[in-house]
Amino acid sequence: MMLLSGTANRPLSERIARGLDASLCDLTIERFSDGEIFVKINENVRGRDVFIIQPTAPPADNILELLLLIDAAKRASAARVSAVVPYWGYARQDRKDQPRVAIGAKLMANLVTTAGADRVVSVDFHQHQLQAFFDIPVDHLYAAPVLIEHFRDRELDPLVVVASDVGAAKMARGYARRLGGEIAMIDKRRPAHNVAEVVNVVGDVRGKNCLIPDDT
Amino acid sequence: MMLLSGTANRPLSERIARGLDASLCDLTIERFSDGEIFVKINENVRGRDVFIIQPTAPPADNILELLLLIDAAKRASAARVSAVVPYWGYARQDRKDQPRVAIGAKLMANLVTTAGADRVVSVDFHQHQLQAFFDIPVDHLYAAPVLIEHFRDRELDPLVVVASDVGAAKMARGYARRLGGEIAMIDKRRPAHNVAEVVNVVGDVRGKNCLIPDDT
Amino acid sequence: MMLLSGTANRPLSERIARGLDASLCDLTIERFSDGEIFVKINENVRGRDVFIIQPTAPPADNILELLLLIDAAKRASAARVSAVVPYWGYARQDRKDQPRVAIGAKLMANLVTTAGADRVVSVDFHQHQLQAFFDIPVDHLYAAPVLIEHFRDRELDPLVVVASDVGAAKMARGYARRLGGEIAMIDKRRPAHNVAEVVNVVGDVRGKNCLIPDDT
Amino acid sequence: MMLLSGTANRPLSERIARGLDASLCDLTIERFSDGEIFVKINENVRGRDVFIIQPTAPPADNILELLLLIDAAKRASAARVSAVVPYWGYARQDRKDQPRVAIGAKLMANLVTTAGADRVVSVDFHQHQLQAFFDIPVDHLYAAPVLIEHFRDRELDPLVVVASDVGAAKMARGYARRLGGEIAMIDKRRPAHNVAEVVNVVGDVRGKNCLIPDDT
Amino acid sequence: MMLLSGTANRPLSERIARGLDASLCDLTIERFSDGEIFVKINENVRGRDVFIIQPTAPPADNILELLLLIDAAKRASAARVSAVVPYWGYARQDRKDQPRVAIGAKLMANLVTTAGADRVVSVDFHQHQLQAFFDIPVDHLYAAPVLIEHFRDRELDPLVVVASDVGAAKMARGYARRLGGEIAMIDKRRPAHNVAEVVNVVGDVRGKNCLIPDDT
Amino acid sequence: MMLLSGTANRPLSERIARGLDASLCDLTIERFSDGEIFVKINENVRGRDVFIIQPTAPPADNILELLLLIDAAKRASAARVSAVVPYWGYARQDRKDQPRVAIGAKLMANLVTTAGADRVVSVDFHQHQLQAFFDIPVDHLYAAPVLIEHFRDRELDPLVVVASDVGAAKMARGYARRLGGEIAMIDKRRPAHNVAEVVNVVGDVRGKNCLIPDDT
Repeated sequence: MMLLSGTANRPLSERIARGLDASLCDLTIERFSDGEIFVKINENVRGRDVFIIQPTAPPADNILELLLLIDAAKRASAARVSAVVPYWGYARQDRKDQPRVAIGAKLMANLVTTAGADRVVSVDFHQHQLQAFFDIPVDHLYAAPVLIEHFRDRELDPLVVVASDVGAAKMARGYARRLGGEIAMIDKRRPAHNVAEVVNVVGDVRGKNCLIPDDT
Repeated sequence: MMLLSGTANRPLSERIARGLDASLCDLTIERFSDGEIFVKINENVRGRDVFIIQPTAPPADNILELLLLIDAAKRASAARVSAVVPYWGYARQDRKDQPRVAIGAKLMANLVTTAGADRVVSVDFHQHQLQAFFDIPVDHLYAAPVLIEHFRDRELDPLVVVASDVGAAKMARGYARRLGGEIAMIDKRRPAHNVAEVVNVVGDVRGKNCLIPDDT
Repeated sequence: MMLLSGTANRPLSERIARGLDASLCDLTIERFSDGEIFVKINENVRGRDVFIIQPTAPPADNILELLLLIDAAKRASAARVSAVVPYWGYARQDRKDQPRVAIGAKLMANLVTTAGADRVVSVDFHQHQLQAFFDIPVDHLYAAPVLIEHFRDRELDPLVVVASDVGAAKMARGYARRLGGEIAMIDKRRPAHNVAEVVNVVGDVRGKNCLIPDDT
Repeated sequence: MMLLSGTANRPLSERIARGLDASLCDLTIERFSDGEIFVKINENVRGRDVFIIQPTAPPADNILELLLLIDAAKRASAARVSAVVPYWGYARQDRKDQPRVAIGAKLMANLVTTAGADRVVSVDFHQHQLQAFFDIPVDHLYAAPVLIEHFRDRELDPLVVVASDVGAAKMARGYARRLGGEIAMIDKRRPAHNVAEVVNVVGDVRGKNCLIPDDT
Repeated sequence: MMLLSGTANRPLSERIARGLDASLCDLTIERFSDGEIFVKINENVRGRDVFIIQPTAPPADNILELLLLIDAAKRASAARVSAVVPYWGYARQDRKDQPRVAIGAKLMANLVTTAGADRVVSVDFHQHQLQAFFDIPVDHLYAAPVLIEHFRDRELDPLVVVASDVGAAKMARGYARRLGGEIAMIDKRRPAHNVAEVVNVVGDVRGKNCLIPDDT
Repeated sequence: MMLLSGTANRPLSERIARGLDASLCDLTIERFSDGEIFVKINENVRGRDVFIIQPTAPPADNILELLLLIDAAKRASAARVSAVVPYWGYARQDRKDQPRVAIGAKLMANLVTTAGADRVVSVDFHQHQLQAFFDIPVDHLYAAPVLIEHFRDRELDPLVVVASDVGAAKMARGYARRLGGEIAMIDKRRPAHNVAEVVNVVGDVRGKNCLIPDDT
């Protein structure tokens, strides 16, 4: 196994490497004077099982850097390339909710596949359906167990888990079930891009400890 | 434009044809003695814009009949083939919610594409993310406007739209907004396949007219 | 190697497993109340060499079950998936013998490939050309050696092997050569689907033992 | 429609053009000094429906010339490219009849598709299953009607149509049915490549007019 | 024909539109608060011939914006989508000149194709071989005729066209031939990224007018 | 590892095998009477790492033989197939330098990939950009180190390395740098196919030892 890290979140990659008692592969990632990214893998990856860690949050240089690293690894005859993407950018563009828009999350999935990834590892997709945007295997991890462990130690009873919007109701239900609480929901409506307007709380929160999970 | 109908819901196809003031293309759809489906298109489709109407609810003979019709149309040099699928089967298998299961909805999308469909027309996908399971264009229609028109004429005030489970919260919100009501949610937990156990009603329904939309 | 069995012919799978001194992998194959098939592989297949045994005779639920199992195995990161299909359904729809029909056998080949199979193992394709419908490797086995062994022990001389129709002439010749007999042929004409009408026996069968091989 | 001709059988292309009252597109097809083929289309094909006539009998320069012409037409933005292949080379390599051989006929089909052909037009494939080697539409023509017309005018009664080997039995039956005769079959065995050894005549030919159709 | 413009060089798109006596299609291109790009096409493109103008110079948001626009147009059922890319980013990463680097220019070509472009229009690729990185048609335009027209009007005799490095020798020769001059070459060696060190002038430039074409 | 050799340059394959202390796999490569090539691999390659050595210089039978061998190896379940192509035919057709020509070098790359090669090994591509015509890994070797070793032993000072045309300037520079000499260039213009007309020597060659590398 070889562990490669892009530049989007190098400290995270280092913590992953430490956790695996492994070291990060020696890479050169530079910029040409015009801003183009140059990548070079400085160790032999021929026949190796390569993991490339890079979240794909904006700017797009992050996704492109990931794609260039995948391309370099494949052309250097790596046996298998797994894209480890802790945060999957453009995940909310996962459907056409109005005519003539793009589905950015699917585009991202296609780009990673086209570049040559054999597998994707990611955490808590905004919608779990994102797994199905791929024809390659996806190892989809959940942060919830770690977080639930954390909250179980606190005394939160009586607890109500509040979904921050209708799309989060399922996640809230999961936390409530595992922590032993009720659920409620904020009926938020977003009349325009980036504008959030709370309208109503559905369910009973009076006098209870509120936990509001959010996957953003 | 040529309109073809599979056998899964022929009366619906006939109503669609009438609505378009068109007639259904002459087809032969038979069974061999061993149960294999035989399809033949009895009119020339060369260079034509072909629409094939077939819901893909079980049994799987419905999806296979659709695929055979697409195959026949493509090999007969149709210019474009649109799969019109009023009910998209296996839509709930849209993610891996446990290890080592299939994602049936994505498989279905791949089958239709592989058979040669150039476009899909469907109504109210169980999850709208299903649009992104395709790389071909999807025209995704909504039944809501028709239904809302229907309920607006009744006097439902005070109204609460109740989501039948957490996954339906978004749909409930949409109806509530358009019909001018509150929302509530049934916090149902399904401990095993096909077993539904209602646990709790989140939100206030006392003394109100309850509308429970369901997309199944 | 892991051996998985669909439900189409479970006893056969068990005999294969016994013959290999192996056990069948633990699977869940169930139906939802609406008839949709649910599959789950209950053992770890990551990095394993997986064989899925399922004939694809009608109804189409058999082929769909196979596709779902392939999908589940691939998404669970199996190293290789071989579809073992003792009977290849739709094999006789192997060409366009009239305008605007489908080529079901090729469609089946494409479906299995699209679902993710890396290899196919099958027995006595109706036409051997079916091997070429695939771009993945096909291990095509022959039942003849087993059957010939069987008939050699009997005293069939003087023997004539009779092809049940013109398409079977080649197979008859193979048996005749190995068993040391003559060949004859029934010149059967099928004026309509599923209707067989014998017309003539070509060759000399008088006073001989007749062996009529058939691959259906 | 634009008609292009390779060099494999230019007189045939010219007869086709005359039959269609069309002219052949101006092409340059030359050889570099090292034997490499150079093709150039000298008329504008942008947005046009292009037909390229070229049989693919050996040597392989014929198939390569066809592929280069397809490539040139596609890159010049032709709307559609049909490969018109009166004789489909390597048609007899249509299955693996022994281990570790190639399936040349399928390879040929893949090459033509990869080069960019949208459709294939051909005549009397050695096996009709060859149609199914393609995922693009195939217009498969039959020479039989023309030939039968020819023989019907002669007085051939009593007639027996003799299949030159077991693989030709089906074709013989077709001729016999249309010309009103019996069928017989030569049971030829080919112990090694290119060596044909007649063994036996199956059926009664004594005193009859024999017609032996062959598709080579 | 519909003309869409990304934001990378909007003034250029406007000049192209004016030159064609056309107007630019109404688009929404915005940023979410986290920097993700949102695109929406505000006019109907169904069945239309769409051209999207966007150079792909860094940052990578430019290429991603192009891909999102292509995706939106395809999913909105445009008949054909042409990517008009006046400057093709990453063009110099067109080969592996050292081990384990990416080939960025090919990656870019694959991304544009995967997103759904049917055709590419570009100007003066850094290496003309870039045309062959695509399997879709490329209309590759040359700036030289315009520039040569410009210089022909000046009195440059005696002229020597100087290649700025060995890779530019071919381009210099082209200008020299058309403008009627000699050629020379700067034998520049680049010992490290982004560092240029002139070493030698090959050819005779003394007392002549020097023209140094560069495609960057 | 298994080493297979086509017939294009069998002595070279034998020298490669000797150099690797390996033996060539037993193959049958024959011609049918009509000129079609028949290939059979006579040793088991299932699960093996197969290398097929065959230059693809004209005639096209060489490339077709290579494709048939790849096809045979893949269908026989080889684990990996590498095409070792010491001379890559059609390398000079690497761009559209005039309208409506083919790009033969890219077509060749697509053919080898379609036939099933997993990797390509070649030497000194005419243009290094050819590496990017592939999406599979290419191991591109250089002959220069061997040749430079050869010339270093001779006393060539004062040396000038002369590019035989403008396209060879880069290669000449490489030799000059490693052998410690100047460079010059022949400004050759080719007014028609296969006609070379020297026009001018750019740079100073008087009284020096001239080395003219050529990759043809």
